Amino acid sequence: MSVNILNLKKSILDNNDLDADHLRTELLNRHLFYINLMSSPGSGKTSCLRRLYPFLSSRHTVGVLEADIDSDTDAALLQKQGIPAVQLHTGGMCHLDAEMSRQGIHFFQKETGLCPDILILENVGNLVCPAEFDTGAHLNLCILAVPEGDDKPLKYPLMFQVCDAVLVNKTDTTPAFDFSFEKAEEAIRSRNPDSRIFPVSAKTGEGFQEAAGWIESRLQESMSGQPR
Amino acid sequence: MSVNILNLKKSILDNNDLDADHLRTELLNRHLFYINLMSSPGSGKTSCLRRLYPFLSSRHTVGVLEADIDSDTDAALLQKQGIPAVQLHTGGMCHLDAEMSRQGIHFFQKETGLCPDILILENVGNLVCPAEFDTGAHLNLCILAVPEGDDKPLKYPLMFQVCDAVLVNKTDTTPAFDFSFEKAEEAIRSRNPDSRIFPVSAKTGEGFQEAAGWIESRLQESMSGQPR
Repeated sequence: MSVNILNLKKSILDNNDLDADHLRTELLNRHLFYINLMSSPGSGKTSCLRRLYPFLSSRHTVGVLEADIDSDTDAALLQKQGIPAVQLHTGGMCHLDAEMSRQGIHFFQKETGLCPDILILENVGNLVCPAEFDTGAHLNLCILAVPEGDDKPLKYPLMFQVCDAVLVNKTDTTPAFDFSFEKAEEAIRSRNPDSRIFPVSAKTGEGFQEAAGWIESRLQESMSGQPR
Repeated sequence: MSVNILNLKKSILDNNDLDADHLRTELLNRHLFYINLMSSPGSGKTSCLRRLYPFLSSRHTVGVLEADIDSDTDAALLQKQGIPAVQLHTGGMCHLDAEMSRQGIHFFQKETGLCPDILILENVGNLVCPAEFDTGAHLNLCILAVPEGDDKPLKYPLMFQVCDAVLVNKTDTTPAFDFSFEKAEEAIRSRNPDSRIFPVSAKTGEGFQEAAGWIESRLQESMSGQPR
């Protein structure tokens, strides 16, 4: 199976925040719920997507935009599992913004012929820059993997501030690491008191039903125009 | 023990590459070997530094510049172990460049009163941006932790291209992860055929004597003006 790759063009718009607000409204009007998934490299973004997909796709048409600086391994892996996915290359850029999201969404629809209800962007693996650029998503998620340590929200404050929920992944490896869930939770809440926290393991599948159920409820709220 | 924190100022120089070359020469003339240590968040930069320190400090005065967006946990940890360290805050910036290195080195000497032979910069945890900015270091090292996966050099090409050596850390956790040393080595060499690769475990201490021995040899070559 061949992987379709889009080389993203750098945005030339001055006001990304305004553009992101426009995109968010436009996508809601098209009944497309857009999710921005962020984390460090190797936290398990692709593996978590593979676990979330069966729950979300039972009620929705779901697609994935895989953003990387190079390689097409993630999109290939998802396609192999039957998940509609396209690969976006950022050309060295460390993040995506609203205009690059727009390019990616257009490319997805052109390549797959699908009109998804849910489109998930796997952002570039980076705890710093992606947090600074609003992609126009309706939901920002990040993953904190147990091997990374419970202190990451203290060191990368903006990421945990802008995220609506944190998936604490690789819980199956807890015995091998000195990781305190209490400390992690305290650190996350110090950045965003309203953040939802889901302990998950992409290896065992633990926790994804709960996370997917919460995503579904957020989608319903957004689509019905209700406040969160 | 109080941690000294410097809030770095944004550089205003246009030509960082030229400035980095100047700094590199200037530091060699002062017999200061400057090392830039990079990795994803949570790969174990601070833990690896704590393991390298005893080997390097048996022959040299060694200091550490701890760069983070926020928090002072790393510098505090190093100081507790008796390692001369200062904390640098980047004010949200995702990397350091040569001028910021200069600010940090000056601050270290002012605060500690030491004139080190070796100064190690723990860069911001990020596999993308720090690779794009020459800090003026004589040696670029990065860490790839086993839990992150063996495919990271394929996705973050520039980092592995600019690094002289890669420490493959957390080898003690290999049984818990699907990580192939052969694949990792192949991926690293595809980005930089000359890269040295050291399997290490900051938990057990494995591999650091070899890594420190290699750093020592690179220091001697630089100081004697010999080619690598």
